[in-house]
Amino acid sequence: MELLIKNALVVPMTGDDPFMGSVGVDGNRIVYVGAEVSDAERVIDAGGKVLMPGLVNTHGHVAMTLLRGYADDLPLMTWLEDHVWPFEAKMTGDDVARGTALGIEEMLLGGTTSFVDMYGFEERVAEEADRLGIRALLGAGVLDASIERYEETLRRLLVAAATDRVRAAAGPHAPYTCNPDTLKRVKELAEKYDLPLVVHLSETEDEVRMIRERYGKTSTEYLDELGLLGPRTIAAHCVHLTDGDIAILKERGVHVSHNAQSNMKLASGVARVTELLRQGVNVSLGTDGACSNNDLDMWEEMRAASYLQKVTERDPRVLPAYETLRMATVYGAKALGYNDLGFISEGALADFILVNVDTPHMQPIHNIVSNLVYSGKASDVDTVVVDGKILVEDGRLL
Amino acid sequence: MELLIKNALVVPMTGDDPFMGSVGVDGNRIVYVGAEVSDAERVIDAGGKVLMPGLVNTHGHVAMTLLRGYADDLPLMTWLEDHVWPFEAKMTGDDVARGTALGIEEMLLGGTTSFVDMYGFEERVAEEADRLGIRALLGAGVLDASIERYEETLRRLLVAAATDRVRAAAGPHAPYTCNPDTLKRVKELAEKYDLPLVVHLSETEDEVRMIRERYGKTSTEYLDELGLLGPRTIAAHCVHLTDGDIAILKERGVHVSHNAQSNMKLASGVARVTELLRQGVNVSLGTDGACSNNDLDMWEEMRAASYLQKVTERDPRVLPAYETLRMATVYGAKALGYNDLGFISEGALADFILVNVDTPHMQPIHNIVSNLVYSGKASDVDTVVVDGKILVEDGRLL
Repeated sequence: MELLIKNALVVPMTGDDPFMGSVGVDGNRIVYVGAEVSDAERVIDAGGKVLMPGLVNTHGHVAMTLLRGYADDLPLMTWLEDHVWPFEAKMTGDDVARGTALGIEEMLLGGTTSFVDMYGFEERVAEEADRLGIRALLGAGVLDASIERYEETLRRLLVAAATDRVRAAAGPHAPYTCNPDTLKRVKELAEKYDLPLVVHLSETEDEVRMIRERYGKTSTEYLDELGLLGPRTIAAHCVHLTDGDIAILKERGVHVSHNAQSNMKLASGVARVTELLRQGVNVSLGTDGACSNNDLDMWEEMRAASYLQKVTERDPRVLPAYETLRMATVYGAKALGYNDLGFISEGALADFILVNVDTPHMQPIHNIVSNLVYSGKASDVDTVVVDGKILVEDGRLL
Repeated sequence: MELLIKNALVVPMTGDDPFMGSVGVDGNRIVYVGAEVSDAERVIDAGGKVLMPGLVNTHGHVAMTLLRGYADDLPLMTWLEDHVWPFEAKMTGDDVARGTALGIEEMLLGGTTSFVDMYGFEERVAEEADRLGIRALLGAGVLDASIERYEETLRRLLVAAATDRVRAAAGPHAPYTCNPDTLKRVKELAEKYDLPLVVHLSETEDEVRMIRERYGKTSTEYLDELGLLGPRTIAAHCVHLTDGDIAILKERGVHVSHNAQSNMKLASGVARVTELLRQGVNVSLGTDGACSNNDLDMWEEMRAASYLQKVTERDPRVLPAYETLRMATVYGAKALGYNDLGFISEGALADFILVNVDTPHMQPIHNIVSNLVYSGKASDVDTVVVDGKILVEDGRLL
């Protein structure tokens, strides 16, 4: 065995209870989970720290770390048209690489081991993800204005995102920025290159009104009729959905990425997460970009999602701790297309973290899952392993 | 000069812009703020860290750290009657002291330099606050059942909370747990011992309905008619207020403590913070106890308050970063009765913190106030000074 973590409080997220034990790794797989301590090339004594799956951030624009705090407290269109878009128009591939490195460092230090992205110069995001060791599904963003060169764009991304760990996706921006011809071409190219899709959907009431005016249907119906919704589609936001929209998402097996803090900060509204989960839609969590969050912290995202549903539904029982932690781990992994990620089990991919609980805010421990979801912080993350490799140790990037 | 912090990015919260400079301390007061570097017995090079006022947590039950994660995701009355109250019935003074020490450690490490409390055995809270160096306003909790012994209770607290830093208050629990006779007696004792008041007000719809059934008025009207509302009253929660209630709070000069995360987690509702501020009511922030939050983190409380108002009002402009930071500093200090606390200025009390910004999640810095409010974390707090004494250095309690 190459790596053994012993003396850990394992939170497996398989439905099994937490237990004190060991986890062994060979290559990029977990090969042992249990009470025994065996020999290994490298043994880490977790000293009672929690060992749990790494967090999966299913929606963002990682290079937007460069715009953190650049424009806040503004109406959405002012924010986009007068601040974000002019800034982005000047960004080069090197800028995207720099912003990506900053964001990946932030994510790894906070225990995020996989992320989904959508942006320009996505091949530069892929290079940074590859170099820094994180797992990623990377969507090359496209609007009507950039669809002509899109096959070229995708080919560049496919060269850079060519491993099992760093994968490419098509990234049609949104119903209101992609007309039917653009979306048909995206679908054609996604099929040609066998790519999953990441897309913004029903983020604001304005979008829904605009799409209804243009096409006489909801944003969900619009994408569905063009064939963009399926089990390899991650739809971000999904704030304003009709019951019919939810039925379509369920029927097509679409994965919803819920972005609670971004929806709150931009005043977009509250997604019907409780109802989506009740209807059996796979809902995971995403931070969105650092210009509307303003960090890439999945611990705070878990709390925001759970608390926002509770107060909106006026029911403290909805989105309980364990379900929320599943959204941030195993449901996220499922959205990325993995059935062997997001939990601690023999045979699963070795993406996991050690979380320090020897701090005032994590004591006492009546219920470890509650402490993780309702009190855990990015700064509690001590060790991060992705694809069997240790990337963070003692809270520092290696 | 006893202490000089040099090379700091000072965020004064006086209305002045942030600037690079020095802050000098003698005794428990700030005696110098400016660009000069003078001699001092102890000089700390802040190395570009932010120097800002310490955070003020204006509502909580600090000993409830012992119940962190003890009961979550439950309806309010089940949570209270089947879990919280039975647990609390068994708590001794020693338990309260232990829970308090844990909570104060958490608060100091996260940059909270003052807190308001309400609980039983409040004299033990006072002893711990005195010992650990934090600033506190401590309300001896009282219900109908404990009003007979309340003068004795207050006297015990007054012995323990007898400094300028640790002060006593009366703590009538809430309109629904204190009948008119109890409240009249509390008012009498508060006047006799010259005490401010801390009270829960209009936390839930159930409370408001109950008070209307019993007395034919709102909770705010009920307290007001008994003379409990004034400029030395801190009313926590204030979730369900009529326009008339807001007018009363404004008229009486009551300080409102908004507890966004607790109100969300317990599904109590969303306080009308934007309207309260618009009407000129002083609104500050509180975490509430660790059983309904589940931590004592004022950074997350700032974000929750701002984002919740934005999404509820459907306006991203409300509770902007600077106003939110004022709620967590100078407005909080005002609620505690200080006009020389909560900002960085010559003559002010020396309660301030140094915040590390040399981390991925705090970079780049387009707008330091935005970064502090929307990205800052408890773990960024490097140094904490209360009443002129250094309590935390290098992120560790001294």
